[in-house]
Amino acid sequence: MDDNKNKECTVQFEPSGLKVKIPSGTTLLEAAHRAGIYLSSICGGDGYCGKCKVIVNQGKFHSRPSPLLTPEETRENIVLACQTKVLSDLRVTVPKSHSLETSQILMDTDAHIFSRLAGQTQAELFEYDPLVHKLCVEMSPPTVLDHTADHERLYAAIRKQVNAPVMQTGFRVLQKLSKVLCEDNYKAAVTIGQRGGTTEVIQVEPGRRCKVNYAVAVDLGTTTVVAHLIDLTTAKTIDTEATYNSQMSFGEDYIRRIIYAEQTGAFDQLQECLAHDVNDLIMTMAVRQSIDLQDITGVICAGNTAMIHFLLNLDPTRIRREPYVASAGFVPPIRAAEAGVQINKRGLLYCLPGVAAYIGSDIVAGTLTTRIYTKEKLSIFVDIGTNGEIVLGNKDWLICASSSAGPAFEGSGIKCGMRAGSGAIENLNIVNGDEIRFKAIGGSHPIGICGSGLLDTLSELFVNGIIDRTGRLKATGDPRLTEGDDGLQLQLVEPRNGHQEISITQADINNLIRSKAGIFAAIRILMNSTQTKLEDIDTIYIAGGFGNFMNVQRAVTIGMLPDVPQAKLQFVGNTSIAGAKTVLLSQKALKTAEQIAGSMTYFDLMGNPEYMDEFIKAKFLPHTDLSLFPSVGNLKSQAYA
Amino acid sequence: MDDNKNKECTVQFEPSGLKVKIPSGTTLLEAAHRAGIYLSSICGGDGYCGKCKVIVNQGKFHSRPSPLLTPEETRENIVLACQTKVLSDLRVTVPKSHSLETSQILMDTDAHIFSRLAGQTQAELFEYDPLVHKLCVEMSPPTVLDHTADHERLYAAIRKQVNAPVMQTGFRVLQKLSKVLCEDNYKAAVTIGQRGGTTEVIQVEPGRRCKVNYAVAVDLGTTTVVAHLIDLTTAKTIDTEATYNSQMSFGEDYIRRIIYAEQTGAFDQLQECLAHDVNDLIMTMAVRQSIDLQDITGVICAGNTAMIHFLLNLDPTRIRREPYVASAGFVPPIRAAEAGVQINKRGLLYCLPGVAAYIGSDIVAGTLTTRIYTKEKLSIFVDIGTNGEIVLGNKDWLICASSSAGPAFEGSGIKCGMRAGSGAIENLNIVNGDEIRFKAIGGSHPIGICGSGLLDTLSELFVNGIIDRTGRLKATGDPRLTEGDDGLQLQLVEPRNGHQEISITQADINNLIRSKAGIFAAIRILMNSTQTKLEDIDTIYIAGGFGNFMNVQRAVTIGMLPDVPQAKLQFVGNTSIAGAKTVLLSQKALKTAEQIAGSMTYFDLMGNPEYMDEFIKAKFLPHTDLSLFPSVGNLKSQAYA
Repeated sequence: MDDNKNKECTVQFEPSGLKVKIPSGTTLLEAAHRAGIYLSSICGGDGYCGKCKVIVNQGKFHSRPSPLLTPEETRENIVLACQTKVLSDLRVTVPKSHSLETSQILMDTDAHIFSRLAGQTQAELFEYDPLVHKLCVEMSPPTVLDHTADHERLYAAIRKQVNAPVMQTGFRVLQKLSKVLCEDNYKAAVTIGQRGGTTEVIQVEPGRRCKVNYAVAVDLGTTTVVAHLIDLTTAKTIDTEATYNSQMSFGEDYIRRIIYAEQTGAFDQLQECLAHDVNDLIMTMAVRQSIDLQDITGVICAGNTAMIHFLLNLDPTRIRREPYVASAGFVPPIRAAEAGVQINKRGLLYCLPGVAAYIGSDIVAGTLTTRIYTKEKLSIFVDIGTNGEIVLGNKDWLICASSSAGPAFEGSGIKCGMRAGSGAIENLNIVNGDEIRFKAIGGSHPIGICGSGLLDTLSELFVNGIIDRTGRLKATGDPRLTEGDDGLQLQLVEPRNGHQEISITQADINNLIRSKAGIFAAIRILMNSTQTKLEDIDTIYIAGGFGNFMNVQRAVTIGMLPDVPQAKLQFVGNTSIAGAKTVLLSQKALKTAEQIAGSMTYFDLMGNPEYMDEFIKAKFLPHTDLSLFPSVGNLKSQAYA
Repeated sequence: MDDNKNKECTVQFEPSGLKVKIPSGTTLLEAAHRAGIYLSSICGGDGYCGKCKVIVNQGKFHSRPSPLLTPEETRENIVLACQTKVLSDLRVTVPKSHSLETSQILMDTDAHIFSRLAGQTQAELFEYDPLVHKLCVEMSPPTVLDHTADHERLYAAIRKQVNAPVMQTGFRVLQKLSKVLCEDNYKAAVTIGQRGGTTEVIQVEPGRRCKVNYAVAVDLGTTTVVAHLIDLTTAKTIDTEATYNSQMSFGEDYIRRIIYAEQTGAFDQLQECLAHDVNDLIMTMAVRQSIDLQDITGVICAGNTAMIHFLLNLDPTRIRREPYVASAGFVPPIRAAEAGVQINKRGLLYCLPGVAAYIGSDIVAGTLTTRIYTKEKLSIFVDIGTNGEIVLGNKDWLICASSSAGPAFEGSGIKCGMRAGSGAIENLNIVNGDEIRFKAIGGSHPIGICGSGLLDTLSELFVNGIIDRTGRLKATGDPRLTEGDDGLQLQLVEPRNGHQEISITQADINNLIRSKAGIFAAIRILMNSTQTKLEDIDTIYIAGGFGNFMNVQRAVTIGMLPDVPQAKLQFVGNTSIAGAKTVLLSQKALKTAEQIAGSMTYFDLMGNPEYMDEFIKAKFLPHTDLSLFPSVGNLKSQAYA
């Protein structure tokens, strides 16, 4: 093998046909990464998550044996890409479950939720006045009696249409201005963008290009990145796409990624990963909709503070050290190209404002979308992603905290967990005490469980007495209950047609309980510190990429949310991207988001001794103190659809 | 010779020691240009101005014979660089008269005039509030209880010191922000710059760098480029420098240069010439004052509209075509690096606003400096450069026009003309009817005549009857009067110590009369069109690079300016650079300049039939109509010091 160390091998990936040249000895995971193919790899290439399976069709390779592969799989040349070294030219098939197109369904639903929430929001609260805007500008051509310079002529014409006291024009635009204006006899399509209090002339084109202008809204999650393509001339979402955050190979949560970047100096690499993901999403949608990237003139991002820092390559290292300071909460608009985001080369990249190191712009977006900042009565907003962030408040005050809930409800760190894409179990019921019924996204054979399915599973195991109040699987003699690597595990779906069984392990259950306990403890701390009583709460909004459908009452059953009547619970989907779109379409919404970010009080749980107490009490199902959950007692042994 | 066509030759220039590699057959003028050495070449390399003489010390060359070289010069290997092709490696000496350092004296005087005019202006009218400004900012470092992000912490601290409602920070600054703030425990030196209504954070450095900040003001003339280096912390001019505009090899006036660029597509080349000149001046001063270019954070330019267009590579072609439209009159601030101007890489480049295609920001600067826009009574401002621009008005109205006077009074197109630098005759008197006395800048042997000297010469020749009212040299039998290539010429200074004689030719005199007639005609048209009478005029301000001293009364004697009492005439030097400096040091001055540029009425002489009439009448000394110049009759045959 050493002889071949410097040999170059070509790896071709099917069905995409993408090829890459790499030195002999490179892992298949790395080869896929370089070829621009995303393979799930939650463990970061350590070989224990078993998510990066591929099939080698042809060529020589060396693969470490893995307990995650069945003998049949090994016979069929199915390997873990991270544990397989390339020794010659290879042809490799990437199973369909990795592919991006499977996520289409969920994204459409996000768009639907957006139109319900924000469509209304826009019409009632925020007038259409987008951050990037293409104007049709008609000027009278200069004459001997009116020889105003082209630049001033343009400004005067723009100001007839929009309120733009402070304007700015880039050097390159100015250099081409005269030629472009002459081309269509002083009819021009002028793209303007808001930069702080300044209106920038981003682009001037001949008048016939008036009706073509697009932007992209992005939710930069630690685990998933979601993008929506918006036609700015109609304010409609015309496509949606999602992918895993390819930084995952550097660590599951962002603290680990910051440590990795600090130790190896890999800040640029992490930036490129994220920019690559965003570009992938934009490119996928642009190709599908036959849109030229030059016609996309704006990108708006919401995300946690660390992701925003990574994307812009701001210094994130002090986010993880006392006193936990961000480089910037209010990030000024920049040219997207400066962050390597490939849209119009003068297009702008906006980030929604964040509150603190652990309360990012995704939470501000959620607050904006749910409109809790406008209400007389108190609401709670819970965003369950890789962390769990909580906002409590009303039109007078807002307080927020971040619980390090972990990404269990995103399917990460769960043996058969996956994000809410095609083949994910999003709904699970146990009927007649032990019969398991489920529904998978896309209707196909299930390949894993997403957040809403995991919530259902935990709740149903508890309600049906299969686990006890500490979450321990009871040894009942059920043949589906077997001893696995991580202790006991329960088979939920039998293996079929080459698909592996789907099961939940004791370790999975413990992870889920830790997550829910972290969230409940955070809610308790915020309520206690503001003397908020349960009956003061008007609505609890739950956001996150759970799936199309979420049985929110079950979040109460497991003790993640306080025991309020079902009518007060509302699942609101991905409010991060909904908020980003609202801001994109209305300057007034951006101002509102800035006011929200500026006025929200951050409550630090890490420095709070009571938090650990509350967390420990919440590690029971539903809670140590059953009097907090009167409704849960009625549910035991009761089946519901 | 053809065999050697592609051979590469090295040319070394003395005394600078600069070397350049060029293909065999290249002219020495081109070689000097590529080596970054400026050689005077008013004719653009056609071999008829004789200004590009150099001495070849060693090597093979081929030189065309020229009547501009004496047999002695040819024997000493003195050649015209533009007419000499390099055939081998060469060593060449550039005579000292080409070198930049000779201009020092005049520039100091410009600075002096500025401090007199603008120093007062600043104190009384415009508070110190520069366009680029370095602040010492002290912040309290973040704590657990105050974890405001660095970016917002910085903004809050800046806003304690300056009024900056709209702020902006560049991406690169933001990326380094946290590291820089930590370096000096949240003491920082923050450079801010005004961009329209936005305050941009240009640079953040550790606190110890507070007291170091410089800027450069530039007068971009068609013939000369002048720069002043300003210490922004004290508002003092600490150095000055000037050079010929190296675009001159592409045409004497800017219309010819625009035509050249259009025909050959050489816009980039013309831009690079001008940027090169500006960089030369900045670098010369920075080296002399031991200042790092990174500590120069702003450049401000005033100049005619064409020069501003050339520097920024804006489309200048419509300046020369009806209806004579500029790409931009109000040019937004850009990053200097975008125009190839080498200061701090994030430093800003400002241009003062212009009025029209033929009334540039130099005239707005002059109007600002002379303060005619503040006065109850009417004033006239005349700027004599390559063109002659006139402003007439007071606090209520301003009207302006441009006469294509030609660059005669800048010494261009005049056989022994030169700009106002060391060795230039700046003052000339004829005593006892025919004895010529003169004073040269720097006190050395004269090598040419600058504008003020030419004005004196024309006036004295006229007053002493050596030329008649049409400007014709009278055949008096004076032995100094000889027949040259351009007709009769009068020797003013004998040849001595290897210096050639200095003489004035009939063609020179005709050129000067055309210039003065153009200016007087323009003044008449503006006065007639506004029904302004001579007695309504309170002051006539004359600006231009004439020299240290200008006998302004003589401008009346030759009929360039209307016949007002001497007390109403004021020579104000280079008001273009004075105005640029005023604006650099005060944002209020920039606003005032914008108001001036926005409110000034442009009067088009080219489309005015009366202008040619007035021009023809003004082609006599002092004028066809002697009743317009009652004071001139008294001067004939009277000598004055």
